Amino acid sequence: MPELRKDPIVGRWVIIATDRARRPDQFAPLSPAPTTDSADACPFCEGREAKTPPEIFAVRPSGAANQSGWTVRVVPADDPILRIEGQLTRKGRGMYDLMPGIGAHELVIESPRHVANLADLPAPQIEQVLGAYVSRLSDLERDARFKYALLFKNYGRAAGAGTLVHAHSEIMAMPVNPVRLKDELHGARQYFELKERCIFCDLLRQEVESGRRLAVESRDFVAITPFASRFPFELWVLPRRHAADFTTMTSAERTDLAGLLKATLLRLRQALRDPPYNFILHTAPFRRHKPGAWHTVDEDFHWHIEIMPRLTRVAGFEWGSGFYINPTPPEEAAKFLREVEVATHV
Amino acid sequence: MPELRKDPIVGRWVIIATDRARRPDQFAPLSPAPTTDSADACPFCEGREAKTPPEIFAVRPSGAANQSGWTVRVVPADDPILRIEGQLTRKGRGMYDLMPGIGAHELVIESPRHVANLADLPAPQIEQVLGAYVSRLSDLERDARFKYALLFKNYGRAAGAGTLVHAHSEIMAMPVNPVRLKDELHGARQYFELKERCIFCDLLRQEVESGRRLAVESRDFVAITPFASRFPFELWVLPRRHAADFTTMTSAERTDLAGLLKATLLRLRQALRDPPYNFILHTAPFRRHKPGAWHTVDEDFHWHIEIMPRLTRVAGFEWGSGFYINPTPPEEAAKFLREVEVATHV
Repeated sequence: MPELRKDPIVGRWVIIATDRARRPDQFAPLSPAPTTDSADACPFCEGREAKTPPEIFAVRPSGAANQSGWTVRVVPADDPILRIEGQLTRKGRGMYDLMPGIGAHELVIESPRHVANLADLPAPQIEQVLGAYVSRLSDLERDARFKYALLFKNYGRAAGAGTLVHAHSEIMAMPVNPVRLKDELHGARQYFELKERCIFCDLLRQEVESGRRLAVESRDFVAITPFASRFPFELWVLPRRHAADFTTMTSAERTDLAGLLKATLLRLRQALRDPPYNFILHTAPFRRHKPGAWHTVDEDFHWHIEIMPRLTRVAGFEWGSGFYINPTPPEEAAKFLREVEVATHV
Repeated sequence: MPELRKDPIVGRWVIIATDRARRPDQFAPLSPAPTTDSADACPFCEGREAKTPPEIFAVRPSGAANQSGWTVRVVPADDPILRIEGQLTRKGRGMYDLMPGIGAHELVIESPRHVANLADLPAPQIEQVLGAYVSRLSDLERDARFKYALLFKNYGRAAGAGTLVHAHSEIMAMPVNPVRLKDELHGARQYFELKERCIFCDLLRQEVESGRRLAVESRDFVAITPFASRFPFELWVLPRRHAADFTTMTSAERTDLAGLLKATLLRLRQALRDPPYNFILHTAPFRRHKPGAWHTVDEDFHWHIEIMPRLTRVAGFEWGSGFYINPTPPEEAAKFLREVEVATHV
């Protein structure tokens, strides 16, 4: 009998097909893994700094801005979806609300070398990437027009990646809070009002105790396959220490997270033959004053990263309803990820 | 400058790329249109009734059950996602909630002939299909275990269709309300509390007056491209008369809707070269008693059909945030659909 499971945070029901579970080798890749194509023309490789707009930020052991010598580099998107210039004027048009598409759209180039998958970078390099994330989010927060910055990565065509395969992530700062974040904030607040505890902390405690959905763990972080996973091999990476805001990570935690992310992504690649995936940071919104609230987002929310391999097509049923069908129980996904052999030389 | 637009019902913000709008011929098809493959082995064609489970319902001018002579036929899914047998026992598991995957999963075979696209059926045949929808939804509502029945259609591989191309839709009755429906119900209720008017009726009035996003209209229905469309050429079909429940359609309205649906789907096909699409009915939930409410779902909700062509890949950004980027302003989509020439012989 399949199971209907409810996500405790947003209240979304998911069908978990427990009795005809699909093993990792039963997923046909939705798109070929991005081949590390010819680096000859890649504008993200070291030495081709002139091929991107001037950098906003760089981790740069040597060299001047927009020259060689960097390890991580952040540039504005060439063809940004949201534009940085302009006044933020909210308007109505009859019953509708709109505003100009003001925001920031930045690309974080994660390596000077032509590498496609974050998993293939050395952990100290991933640590520098995390540092760049923190710097950019902290800086964007200072722009009073922005309410949130969405940090995400699309790896592989089926995950929505463009033609540039060189490892990079994107940051979009925006003047509104995305609806999925609002749902999470709302769910977390409701739980806190009832229990006076963070729902993610409770979830983490239960997952660590049971161990059934634990995929990878480190001193400061855990990667779990959530109870009501929407997608096969969906993973959430949570800090063990309660914190709403990603940028408050300590430097020791950052080192630890780099190692855990690398281990998690390597296991995912090994288990599923280099699948396309999306990686999305869920962190507290920039503006969190809430007049009249008895507690704050800092108390009730808990930042995390969601990793969603793209293994199945999402059908109309799921689009129209938000009601997902997942053919792989998360307990089995976690077990596969724990048991898969990862070559030690990588 | 791109525009940020807010869906007035669920509060979702969408980026509309107004200044580099994509025209219909700029979308590469995500998957080939389903070829009307050999009908030789199709279990849905007339004369092969023994190849499906016994029928639940049929529009049958002649012949006995499970024989030739039908025009629309409803059968249980061969490999159902939810199962009809069993007790509905809700349980907790630590902090989590779950229940057995009880429900109904039915297929509505929309023609005895081997035709793939609903658009290609004669309007009187589409009318019979609508009649079958009403009959099945009314029947499923009587099962006290079910809270909702989701009616949807996946046309084309990129829209999640399986290997059977013969025109059919699916009905999944379920013991919970899908989260997207809950969001709509919530938004509609909030608006009604504020205005004492149905938000969809207000939206309809504004769209009919402005005409800018009106794609197709008939006596009783309109097809609009919504102000905050998530997808290029997204369409909503709304009844002009306020009604929360699809099954309360009059027979004259059903005739009218059949014609409007055919006209809309033909225009979509012509404008976008037979695109894959999803079609989803949004109707009132089965159980609508709400203790203590000052008004009911019948007053504040308004049924409608959402049609979503699959023209763009949905990236991680959109998955993780519910924040969509739409490269075609709905005003232009509506204009294309109004102006496209549709052969009169079809």
